[in-house]
Amino acid sequence: MSFNTFGHMFRVTTFGESHGVAIGCVVDGCPPLIPLTVEDIQHDLDRRRPGQSRFTTQRQEPDQVRILSGVFDGVTTGTPIALMIDNVDQRSRDYSAIAAQFRPGHADLTYELKYGIRDYRGGGRSSARETAMRVAAGGVARKVLGEGVRIRGALIQIGPHRIEHSRWDWDQVDQNPFFCPDPATATLWETYLGDVRKAGSSAGAVIEVVAEGVPPGLGAPIYGKLDADIAAALMSINAVKGVEIGEGFAAAALSGEANADEMHMRDGLVEFASNHAGGILGGISTGQPVVARFAVKPTSSILTPRQSVDRAGQDIEIGTRGRHDPCVGIRAVPVGEAMLALVLADHLLRHRAQNPDAPTTARLPRN
Amino acid sequence: MSFNTFGHMFRVTTFGESHGVAIGCVVDGCPPLIPLTVEDIQHDLDRRRPGQSRFTTQRQEPDQVRILSGVFDGVTTGTPIALMIDNVDQRSRDYSAIAAQFRPGHADLTYELKYGIRDYRGGGRSSARETAMRVAAGGVARKVLGEGVRIRGALIQIGPHRIEHSRWDWDQVDQNPFFCPDPATATLWETYLGDVRKAGSSAGAVIEVVAEGVPPGLGAPIYGKLDADIAAALMSINAVKGVEIGEGFAAAALSGEANADEMHMRDGLVEFASNHAGGILGGISTGQPVVARFAVKPTSSILTPRQSVDRAGQDIEIGTRGRHDPCVGIRAVPVGEAMLALVLADHLLRHRAQNPDAPTTARLPRN
Amino acid sequence: MSFNTFGHMFRVTTFGESHGVAIGCVVDGCPPLIPLTVEDIQHDLDRRRPGQSRFTTQRQEPDQVRILSGVFDGVTTGTPIALMIDNVDQRSRDYSAIAAQFRPGHADLTYELKYGIRDYRGGGRSSARETAMRVAAGGVARKVLGEGVRIRGALIQIGPHRIEHSRWDWDQVDQNPFFCPDPATATLWETYLGDVRKAGSSAGAVIEVVAEGVPPGLGAPIYGKLDADIAAALMSINAVKGVEIGEGFAAAALSGEANADEMHMRDGLVEFASNHAGGILGGISTGQPVVARFAVKPTSSILTPRQSVDRAGQDIEIGTRGRHDPCVGIRAVPVGEAMLALVLADHLLRHRAQNPDAPTTARLPRN
Amino acid sequence: MSFNTFGHMFRVTTFGESHGVAIGCVVDGCPPLIPLTVEDIQHDLDRRRPGQSRFTTQRQEPDQVRILSGVFDGVTTGTPIALMIDNVDQRSRDYSAIAAQFRPGHADLTYELKYGIRDYRGGGRSSARETAMRVAAGGVARKVLGEGVRIRGALIQIGPHRIEHSRWDWDQVDQNPFFCPDPATATLWETYLGDVRKAGSSAGAVIEVVAEGVPPGLGAPIYGKLDADIAAALMSINAVKGVEIGEGFAAAALSGEANADEMHMRDGLVEFASNHAGGILGGISTGQPVVARFAVKPTSSILTPRQSVDRAGQDIEIGTRGRHDPCVGIRAVPVGEAMLALVLADHLLRHRAQNPDAPTTARLPRN
Repeated sequence: MSFNTFGHMFRVTTFGESHGVAIGCVVDGCPPLIPLTVEDIQHDLDRRRPGQSRFTTQRQEPDQVRILSGVFDGVTTGTPIALMIDNVDQRSRDYSAIAAQFRPGHADLTYELKYGIRDYRGGGRSSARETAMRVAAGGVARKVLGEGVRIRGALIQIGPHRIEHSRWDWDQVDQNPFFCPDPATATLWETYLGDVRKAGSSAGAVIEVVAEGVPPGLGAPIYGKLDADIAAALMSINAVKGVEIGEGFAAAALSGEANADEMHMRDGLVEFASNHAGGILGGISTGQPVVARFAVKPTSSILTPRQSVDRAGQDIEIGTRGRHDPCVGIRAVPVGEAMLALVLADHLLRHRAQNPDAPTTARLPRN
Repeated sequence: MSFNTFGHMFRVTTFGESHGVAIGCVVDGCPPLIPLTVEDIQHDLDRRRPGQSRFTTQRQEPDQVRILSGVFDGVTTGTPIALMIDNVDQRSRDYSAIAAQFRPGHADLTYELKYGIRDYRGGGRSSARETAMRVAAGGVARKVLGEGVRIRGALIQIGPHRIEHSRWDWDQVDQNPFFCPDPATATLWETYLGDVRKAGSSAGAVIEVVAEGVPPGLGAPIYGKLDADIAAALMSINAVKGVEIGEGFAAAALSGEANADEMHMRDGLVEFASNHAGGILGGISTGQPVVARFAVKPTSSILTPRQSVDRAGQDIEIGTRGRHDPCVGIRAVPVGEAMLALVLADHLLRHRAQNPDAPTTARLPRN
Repeated sequence: MSFNTFGHMFRVTTFGESHGVAIGCVVDGCPPLIPLTVEDIQHDLDRRRPGQSRFTTQRQEPDQVRILSGVFDGVTTGTPIALMIDNVDQRSRDYSAIAAQFRPGHADLTYELKYGIRDYRGGGRSSARETAMRVAAGGVARKVLGEGVRIRGALIQIGPHRIEHSRWDWDQVDQNPFFCPDPATATLWETYLGDVRKAGSSAGAVIEVVAEGVPPGLGAPIYGKLDADIAAALMSINAVKGVEIGEGFAAAALSGEANADEMHMRDGLVEFASNHAGGILGGISTGQPVVARFAVKPTSSILTPRQSVDRAGQDIEIGTRGRHDPCVGIRAVPVGEAMLALVLADHLLRHRAQNPDAPTTARLPRN
Repeated sequence: MSFNTFGHMFRVTTFGESHGVAIGCVVDGCPPLIPLTVEDIQHDLDRRRPGQSRFTTQRQEPDQVRILSGVFDGVTTGTPIALMIDNVDQRSRDYSAIAAQFRPGHADLTYELKYGIRDYRGGGRSSARETAMRVAAGGVARKVLGEGVRIRGALIQIGPHRIEHSRWDWDQVDQNPFFCPDPATATLWETYLGDVRKAGSSAGAVIEVVAEGVPPGLGAPIYGKLDADIAAALMSINAVKGVEIGEGFAAAALSGEANADEMHMRDGLVEFASNHAGGILGGISTGQPVVARFAVKPTSSILTPRQSVDRAGQDIEIGTRGRHDPCVGIRAVPVGEAMLALVLADHLLRHRAQNPDAPTTARLPRN
């Protein structure tokens, strides 16, 4: 990961500002001969699209992706796949106020200090709108990983309200506006977040993403560990402040006995009795599901005025009106899935470059 | 970060196995004319060195570093700085048992599945011994950052026992064998971890690292955000399962109002009233202290036998005897500091490559 | 340089096929606050544009570039600059023959062997059309380098006919359809290449590119030497088979005495009496003009039938009809300039990352 | 290639100065389970070793390599392979003169302008001594490529004297002190270079390296073309001023008809009637031998005094006494082979990362 490019062998470069002409990405290093259509990519984009419930921003963007290159006769050719989405709903307005002000919690000040300039319209480059291209690229990554690898995500906490893990039901995730796997908690959130929204306030969230069917051996120690790359990938999503693998921070309180994932043989494969490790040991996938969580801070755009400063160096008060997500964590679910898919696709290619004969299941090498 | 190399412009490549001839690293991209002596590097190595209390492994390694290149007349020359530590205490023993067994929680199985082979002596490449070279390289990074940037770390949790934050005293950190900033908790840990050690069990930990004096502007959005690179750097340390910036996971439960870091002007500089963000907004440093935490799982080497499998595909029971850290989190403190130093040094160079005229304090650009 | 991305700190990623929807690039790492307009980029694109004389392909492409991102209020913002050119003259035709045949000298066979598929329309990704985006990105690189650095190119050989170096006149380069600095040779080429064209044959060429005003110190030994990166950059241009710096291959026949560039002081700066080195010593720029040459093979598309094979494994004869450049080397002149600009811009940023205080002229450091 | 690291997936980082403690390298990304001994590496080091005839420097370095890591039980483990050579013959002398002077043709001035300091002892980092580690790493690369790929080099020109290509006999290369495949020319060189040496002068050279058995498909267009990477790799060798692939600069004078490599089928494989392309089309290997040449300038260390300047900004005269190669091109032969091996090994891994199912011979894909 460097600057606006993600990955080593399977690489994604994104571009575009929230209110510019278009946003787009170039997916490079994709293996050839993989069937790829706009629909493959559009599916997850639609899941991330704003304006689908009252709990996300009311900006109306069809987010219709176009494939500009790299696909021929319906399959990938091994050359760069350029994807582009035209920005449609760049609502015309007067930006003179926001242009000169630094909103707390936003990247306004830091972009200005780093670059001496920023495109202030809708957050410019630092807008979560950029994540649409991550989701688009993630759609390609999923195809590279193939149907054997299944990547899903769910929202497991909004504000102080965590789901009950024992009620987890993947089938529920698409049945509510929160990607919530626990219908009882979804109902609770509906009330809670409704109140937050009406108050012009905002709430944080925790998302869990899971990849099943990941072959063992992915991950490149020491400085390209699978969990290290996942941590960077998830932390790079807007507003994320924490990342965990498997037990995560809870592991600190466990004893070595409780945290050990015991192993046994079954049908010639190594099988684990538990998955405290979240599918990764020594930076390398074990073949178990890869489990990661990330925390999203509450949306920084709130109605209540906060103390800040402006470009002229004056103390000011600033509150945000207009369209915003009361909980940006909701739409981060498909984004988190996409980032996990991108990391895994990159590592799949890196792994087979060095270890083309490695087993794809937890089958022990012959002695 | 890729494979065994860390960083883009300030780059570190490490090599070596726990029980091989030597461990070492090559620090590339270091600016020239920086005074550098063995002592600069040895200081933190000594803080990380094993065998200094009963709470760390009894392996005796003097960890005496040598500078092989890149320093001339007492200053860096801009060419690669090679550092090396000879392995001294590779205790002679019979490895035939461990050679054929996969210890739960260790990287034994995954190295074997990925590479079809592993150096099983003392954990080989996956041993925490590799982190000595991170600390050594971190010593160079600290010199690159200069005296204006101060990086310190502390242990804030062992097992279920967290320090009381209000009692934080940096001066205490070197007064106990735990790098603990809260003497009352250090006393509690002494008893707790003593019991854990006698029982042949192990405990996890949480470490906090803080960098003060970091100039604003460090961080390269979108995929090279400062927090993303810190997350990867810390997650790449052995046994780490979670990483947080600023409020971290606790941010999920805060309201937007509570989480906002308000700003005002003081003496021509932007000043913050709080630091929930941990010194980073939009992936770019604000000029406030950069604050990160990471969770270390309990040492996987425990006395109590656990179910596992061997190389021949037989179910076995395995328990670990001999030297080990009852809480590997303790010695992770200087390692965490080193990783933070490495990320910051790399980003300092990257930042000035693109933005040579950016301010080094939170002074607003002229309009 | 890797895959479809060029550069380390100033990075360009290109995409697009000859007859696809569009071609484009993403310029990442560009410093902020640089004035940039479409005209800055269009100028060199127009110099490279096909169909301007009978000595280049008759394909009519306006090659009108658009800036999609990274520029705000007329200046760069430090975020990725996306540039795009719509393909207009994708002449509708029957590709069934070429689809199944491998043309000698083209990349048809190798793309097929590598990827198992290729976009055969107009050469697809391997078409020289991709070089339009190099020229576009080079326009940005020129702005990064600033007015103090002047990069120019000239054609110095077509077929066996070399210019007379003593007649070199930069002002002549734009006065003939060959970028030829020697008007007498340009007249000779007009006849020669006219005959080649009418015969349906083709000719090779040699191009020289020169960068004046390059500050000393650019280049990152050992594996990022300035000349090594220039060699890769020029060799990556379609149909290039050789690259030289300074004396190049002729240096092999010189004595050490003849090849030495003697130095003396003038006005406090080190000055050279000659430039056999082509402005680079030890992989680092000296401050003298950087001089490079590259050889372009004759266009592979010729009328005379050649023996080849088809996709079904049958021996065939194949000759090329339709639009093509009788000497692709001509339009390679602005491409070579662009590649040199891109290398220099990247190295400028890399140099100041490590050596922010290095002198920008050949002024000796104080003792 | 960047700074002191070479390659993407198969990566080599070198360190060390001519008269420092040691020189070394770290080979990262090497596939596991490859048998590797010191002898595998020592063989080519001995071919490059100085002091073996009166035509190379009389410095006596045994150049005995040690393997510090990454090899276990006689095979590679997939972890970094560290190689090191202790410097033995750092002849003790007074460097005060050379310390303050800039020798023409050397990197003295440019290192000083870039870094403000240099290790002046024996050329420091810019010494050709660094190439020993390229040769060592190349030995590992050869093992990765396997016995099916044969890489050989020969000296084909010294000063103005070129071999007669029709007399090329690979068996002769080891029968003379020049790596010359043409015994008649070797005799001529013996006289010529003897005179050059006695006169304290020096001569340039041209080297040809050939890789047979290279599978088709290696090379990553657009900016990671196989020939572009070879060009950079060869140009990065000390004193190299030009690089050619296949016909090279001579291609400029050929007609399209003469330069076309015709194809036909033989035994189910595509076969070429000639190899003007040097085994690479569109940046991708064809399966034919990869043929490259590079030109080495005459050794800059000569007896005859030349005009130069010193560190204090005074005009001086400078001539070189003591040990040096009258023609550095001779020992560049094994270095050129090593660089070609490194590029091919890296591309082999990159190719199979993206195209694991690509054919390893020029067998056409099924329709």
